[in-house]
Amino acid sequence: MNDRLLRALRREPVDRTPVWFMRQAGRSLPKYRASRAERGMFELLRDPEAAAAITALPLEYFPVDAVVLYNDLVTPFFAAGFEVELRPGVGPVVLQPIEAARDVDRLKPFDPRVALDWALVQIRLLVQRLDVPVIGFVGAPLTLCSYLVAGGRGHDLAKLKAFMWREPEAWQRLASFWAEHLAEFAIAQHEAGAAAIQVFDSWAGALSPEDYERHALPYVARMFARLRAAGVPSIHFYTGNPALLPLVAAAGGDAVSVDWRIPIDRAWELIGEDRAIQGNLDPAALLAGRDFAVARTREILERVNRRPGHIFNLGHGVLPETDPAVLRAVVETVHSF
Amino acid sequence: MNDRLLRALRREPVDRTPVWFMRQAGRSLPKYRASRAERGMFELLRDPEAAAAITALPLEYFPVDAVVLYNDLVTPFFAAGFEVELRPGVGPVVLQPIEAARDVDRLKPFDPRVALDWALVQIRLLVQRLDVPVIGFVGAPLTLCSYLVAGGRGHDLAKLKAFMWREPEAWQRLASFWAEHLAEFAIAQHEAGAAAIQVFDSWAGALSPEDYERHALPYVARMFARLRAAGVPSIHFYTGNPALLPLVAAAGGDAVSVDWRIPIDRAWELIGEDRAIQGNLDPAALLAGRDFAVARTREILERVNRRPGHIFNLGHGVLPETDPAVLRAVVETVHSF
Repeated sequence: MNDRLLRALRREPVDRTPVWFMRQAGRSLPKYRASRAERGMFELLRDPEAAAAITALPLEYFPVDAVVLYNDLVTPFFAAGFEVELRPGVGPVVLQPIEAARDVDRLKPFDPRVALDWALVQIRLLVQRLDVPVIGFVGAPLTLCSYLVAGGRGHDLAKLKAFMWREPEAWQRLASFWAEHLAEFAIAQHEAGAAAIQVFDSWAGALSPEDYERHALPYVARMFARLRAAGVPSIHFYTGNPALLPLVAAAGGDAVSVDWRIPIDRAWELIGEDRAIQGNLDPAALLAGRDFAVARTREILERVNRRPGHIFNLGHGVLPETDPAVLRAVVETVHSF
Repeated sequence: MNDRLLRALRREPVDRTPVWFMRQAGRSLPKYRASRAERGMFELLRDPEAAAAITALPLEYFPVDAVVLYNDLVTPFFAAGFEVELRPGVGPVVLQPIEAARDVDRLKPFDPRVALDWALVQIRLLVQRLDVPVIGFVGAPLTLCSYLVAGGRGHDLAKLKAFMWREPEAWQRLASFWAEHLAEFAIAQHEAGAAAIQVFDSWAGALSPEDYERHALPYVARMFARLRAAGVPSIHFYTGNPALLPLVAAAGGDAVSVDWRIPIDRAWELIGEDRAIQGNLDPAALLAGRDFAVARTREILERVNRRPGHIFNLGHGVLPETDPAVLRAVVETVHSF
């Protein structure tokens, strides 16, 4: 079993720096596009055999050190009684979103081991078949709610921020609901065999440090405290606003995943020596050709300088236009450094 | 003549902190929505009487200390021979964008005093009629090109970054073309009567410090050097990535306009004491009700603590859903502090 990822999360020495990519099983892969042409994503996800095949697909293209569960951040909405549609060019749209404080009462408590069992079955299938670890994931309450509160993510989360400021009590109930249910789902994924859990707080960077500390940090910190108590290795992902980095690190996670907006060595100083780090190649670099992507990959590895605790990744997901051959070249560069 | 804005740009004491809002003459104003229902924006802009009436419109709603020219960042594209369409929900779309290095040759040099004369006529009309200064504006090369290079702004400027990395020589020609033409347009606006020029580098925050320094800073710095040599008071606006702030400040501008992602007093430390600052209320705060917006306004004023050189503004443009009565309450709070 490839244990580079788990060793890096514990900041132990590794033979080669572990590498995986967010959205590595996505539209950049020709075989994924073929699967999706036949069936909708939410239907595919609920078919554990088909979903497991997609999760494993990147291994046919490049030898990453982990696979990441084929799922979507928003599937817990279905479990909580909210219908979602995937709209081309827009993303997931909640049909009857939360508009007012009273709408928070519409959230239906659920047991992720029952309501999201198809994800757990997928993990069990993968663990039997693969010799690389499976990374499970959940959203952080702030990021998940950016899709659930009316208005969506547009304009730097303006609608979501206005909601949390106008209705602080309702926001507290909403974010607490998700902190509890998502922590439980994450723990269930670990029990099913996921080696580590990545918590996506993708849009946290739209907040000021003050608002992050008051309205986002308490809930995501509660999730990481539960993961830690349950012995679940964890990665804390966000993008944007490097000024948040010390607070994001304080909220928890064995590793913090940072984007390209700050050099990785400077980010590591801010996160602290007692933590692992993941990142931080700009996904756009993969669109500029193999040589450029390889050069940028080397620059990051040189900044890290083999310090134990680095997981190589992008600063955000693989873009659909990315050539899998360039991803392969990046993996080879990381592994031969 | 209200001279608070110009005094603040020189960091001189003022009787009241000057305040204006980006997009203050926009969809948040009922009378603006009525004008736009009748005619398209690019048609309105070319009618100096109609455009001047829109620029002055906010003064009917709240007593700001400056108006900002009714124009759009992308209108110089028409002058350079590129057609643009405004698509609802998307924004400006260039019909035959720059896709490859050779497309840069399609840029047609132009004299802004001729090709964009309607903007200069608008300024002359306003200066005759108003007792507040008129702020002119232009885009920075990076931000302007994010609309001109194929793929547009989506995904953190991925397509634009890939272009500049793949075609550094073509990027240099493209960015230099805009640096020269936009500096010239800015100077022409000042000559026509604009008291100050704001340079919008709205999307610079998608870049790493290294890429900003190499691929964006040289061109915007050239623009500010020309403005300075011509005696044009200037404001340097960007959003996102506080890690860029020292570099953005180094590129120039009498004032640097910062967003809410970093506290204003901390931003001022990074910019330096010898510069003015503009900002930095989150536009979303105006959607959370009058009391909330006023409280957040006060917090910013308290952080600044009456230090000369502060222009109160938002961190980005007024959102269309904003109530003009809340904008008015913010202006009154700033003026009575």
